[in-house]
Amino acid sequence: MSEARVLTDPDVIDSYARDRTFVEPGKPLGVVLAASRDDVVTTLRWATEHRVPVVPRGAGTGLAGGAIAGDGSIVLSLARMTAIKELSPVDEIAVVEPGVITADLDRAAREHGLMYAPDPSSYEISTIGGNLATNAGGLRCVKYGVTRDSALGLEVVLADGRIMNTGRRTMKGVTGYDLTGLFVGSEGTLGVITSATVRLRRAPVAPPATFAAEFGSLREAGAAVTAIMAAGCQPSLMELLDRATLEAIDDWRNIGLEAGTMAMLIGQSDATDAQAMAERMERLCMENGASFVAVSSSPQETEELIGLRRLAYQAKERQGACLVEDVCVPRSVLPEMITHIEAAAVRHGVRIATVAHAGDGNLHPVFIFDHGTVEPPPEVWAAADEVFTRALELGGTLTGEHGVGLLKQRWLALESGPVATEVQRGIKAVFDPLGLLNPGKAI
Amino acid sequence: MSEARVLTDPDVIDSYARDRTFVEPGKPLGVVLAASRDDVVTTLRWATEHRVPVVPRGAGTGLAGGAIAGDGSIVLSLARMTAIKELSPVDEIAVVEPGVITADLDRAAREHGLMYAPDPSSYEISTIGGNLATNAGGLRCVKYGVTRDSALGLEVVLADGRIMNTGRRTMKGVTGYDLTGLFVGSEGTLGVITSATVRLRRAPVAPPATFAAEFGSLREAGAAVTAIMAAGCQPSLMELLDRATLEAIDDWRNIGLEAGTMAMLIGQSDATDAQAMAERMERLCMENGASFVAVSSSPQETEELIGLRRLAYQAKERQGACLVEDVCVPRSVLPEMITHIEAAAVRHGVRIATVAHAGDGNLHPVFIFDHGTVEPPPEVWAAADEVFTRALELGGTLTGEHGVGLLKQRWLALESGPVATEVQRGIKAVFDPLGLLNPGKAI
Ligand SMILES: Cc1cc2nc3c(=O)[nH]c(=O)nc-3n(C[C@H](O)[C@H](O)[C@H](O)COP(=O)(O)OP(=O)(O)OC[C@H]3O[C@@H](n4cnc5c(N)ncnc54)[C@H](O)[C@@H]3O)c2cc1C
Ligand SMILES: Cc1cc2nc3c(=O)[nH]c(=O)nc-3n(C[C@H](O)[C@H](O)[C@H](O)COP(=O)(O)OP(=O)(O)OC[C@H]3O[C@@H](n4cnc5c(N)ncnc54)[C@H](O)[C@@H]3O)c2cc1C
Repeated sequence: MSEARVLTDPDVIDSYARDRTFVEPGKPLGVVLAASRDDVVTTLRWATEHRVPVVPRGAGTGLAGGAIAGDGSIVLSLARMTAIKELSPVDEIAVVEPGVITADLDRAAREHGLMYAPDPSSYEISTIGGNLATNAGGLRCVKYGVTRDSALGLEVVLADGRIMNTGRRTMKGVTGYDLTGLFVGSEGTLGVITSATVRLRRAPVAPPATFAAEFGSLREAGAAVTAIMAAGCQPSLMELLDRATLEAIDDWRNIGLEAGTMAMLIGQSDATDAQAMAERMERLCMENGASFVAVSSSPQETEELIGLRRLAYQAKERQGACLVEDVCVPRSVLPEMITHIEAAAVRHGVRIATVAHAGDGNLHPVFIFDHGTVEPPPEVWAAADEVFTRALELGGTLTGEHGVGLLKQRWLALESGPVATEVQRGIKAVFDPLGLLNPGKAI
Repeated sequence: MSEARVLTDPDVIDSYARDRTFVEPGKPLGVVLAASRDDVVTTLRWATEHRVPVVPRGAGTGLAGGAIAGDGSIVLSLARMTAIKELSPVDEIAVVEPGVITADLDRAAREHGLMYAPDPSSYEISTIGGNLATNAGGLRCVKYGVTRDSALGLEVVLADGRIMNTGRRTMKGVTGYDLTGLFVGSEGTLGVITSATVRLRRAPVAPPATFAAEFGSLREAGAAVTAIMAAGCQPSLMELLDRATLEAIDDWRNIGLEAGTMAMLIGQSDATDAQAMAERMERLCMENGASFVAVSSSPQETEELIGLRRLAYQAKERQGACLVEDVCVPRSVLPEMITHIEAAAVRHGVRIATVAHAGDGNLHPVFIFDHGTVEPPPEVWAAADEVFTRALELGGTLTGEHGVGLLKQRWLALESGPVATEVQRGIKAVFDPLGLLNPGKAI
């Protein structure tokens, strides 16, 4: 490898050792900016020979600490491997390097009337490799599925430098165990993804139609979600914003928030009969107690309505440092879960503002604490602990889409149980017997 | 376990040692008809203690030899565990025992306006457990995905009798490695599925609309498939029947097959605008050279058109013993693949009739040989070998939905390559270090 692709300046390294969490990294030995699969092979062989831990890294936008690097490790960045190697409109697949930015692939697909469906809110800054390694979700996944549902085949480099191909280029296939699925969501602990064959989908042709509905209670908003899904409306996104989130947005942009509004539901249809579908969802909101609903299929108004949702995270960041959480519960208990989150906030004197991918039951309670505090204070962790425990009691999971990373390690055993935990360690050892790949993450 | 649930009469055992392939089984020691998870645990503990191989079995409808039992093994039948333990219309999930017949779950779901989407043609006789273990496909999967896409969580018993829970009840979740996905398609080699949490979907409300189109060449039929998918018509099924298949049906039922008809395409839409969609697909067939197209949304005519497809397998069985194959290729090379199959048939003097789940590029070339022949004769294997090799050369896979079982073992290494093969053996050893679960299958 040429010298230029290895960084050793401690200040530069530090920025490559972090992700979007508050976790303080250690002091890695260096950063390798891989330009090719060969660079990855060379790095991993060297690391195996010298028993040095390797932390794979995409864009570092992770919210679970998955790309946080420890003392004495090597950061292996895939961000420069940005080639879209193939895009077949007929077969509706693309073959890409891991550093391709999610939205860039989507844009390339749209030139052929196709789309790359998985759209984490970070899609303008995250990489396909990072999305695969975390099994990223997004807004559209209520209709089009998560990243796993778009992953057909992978090329991965194992810890000892061996190259393995998984999966296929075809829509279906059952030869051997599903190694592709095993790598998706494995957070860089089983191997480094150097190429991916992903599925594209037809992009909707008609302009989408969007609605936004205000509710006086979470219970009503939850009932509207249930009614919309039960009616088979197939929203292409459906987001719920709680009062605290709406207040944060209102403080910033003055959206004229009414005193009685406790929740807002924003939904969209991209079907051929989008406008009719959005109107149907509007009616279902009204029938379930909405105080106000707007519907539109004008691109500008759609942008404004969805824009509200997009402002949510930044609005909260203005108020303080943020711990972004990610529980997922069965849809039927969504309102109950939010109510519980609000109670935990009050009980522990903590600010929590929640948005939810409501159609999936996936909630992001954002714990807001003082800017400048390095770590979330104990009362935040106490409230978060209650939220996690309650989500599990309600038949939910600790993480819907962000991953376990470092941040969820403490709670992991509660969900996985002893047998699955042992089995996962066994699987890890098959791929990485020396435990060099992203140690301490995911499992 | 009570004596009644263990069968030892050799004649009775023999029928439990077979599936729908021609493979001659060995002589198992006995059959356990499990009635509960505890029976499964007891059986596996006993088998581990005595080092006896165990062959899990659903309904024995497999087409790859996955449930064929060898000498000295125990057949562990799950067919009596038929409880639908939970069905939640709001959360759109069901929790079922493995012996539930696929169509029974679908019917139970329909009572709530839902459906269980995976529909292998065997759905009236196959079990959910068998579908999960093979990752079964079906006609609807072009729109709704394969069995894996409906599997959320599993309870499995490992070879040593330990119970493990995988996955979740929620739509999304990324805690730890995807063990659910790993079990789906593992053909009973990693553990025995004793309970499954599966996803249901809203059943379409409008009656479906169906078309059937006749073409003078495979190339034109293939072009129509491409055009229909590219136009975003989202067919809920799309099946291609070649000339040999049509002749077999015509011989039996006299459908008035025209001399020039080389292929038939049968498709369906279940969208809210089904009739308009079917007419659009009709137009695309005409534009691509169809000589005749019928469209209908009357339930009776729909039944007749789809019925043609359903007759295909039986029509072939009338003509001889059948080796049902299952390659899958990228959609763009579907006509090329069929042409190659026809050439192989001529070259080896073998009768091959092909139907394809055309929207997925999944082909079932059925090799027809003399009734009464126990094993396919050498020329059938020679032709099959050519078909497999060509499918791989075209970027395809050996098996789209039936699995590897015993029948594809010979070709497996061609597709998987040495690293993936070794890794899969390593994974197998994590779950089943003594190699007792369904030895010689899948990997
Ligand atoms: C504003 C904002 C909004 C967000 N919205 C969403 C959302 O809607 N949905 C969602 O799911 N997430 C969201 N995220 C989280 C984050 O963007 C995703 O987890 C994303 O998938 C991470 O991609 P990345 O390229 O930044 O990966 P990184 O953060 O660099 O890495 C993430 C993990 O993947 C591993 N990894 C990266 N590349 C590879 C590779 N090539 N091979 C093997 N392992 C690799 C790393 O080791 C690490 O464990 C959001 C983040 C931000 C900051
Ligand atoms: C007429 C006909 C049409 C068919 N059409 C299709 C089709 O369209 N699509 C398709 O995919 N297949 C099709 N098949 C093949 C077959 O029906 C499927 O493979 C089905 O999934 C097998 O289910 P089963 O219950 O019969 O399983 P079995 O044949 O009993 O077993 C299949 C495999 O699963 C394992 N297994 C079974 N139950 C369990 C369990 N509980 N835990 C662990 N392992 C288990 C067995 O060990 C074996 O390896 C068809 C077969 C026939 C005869």
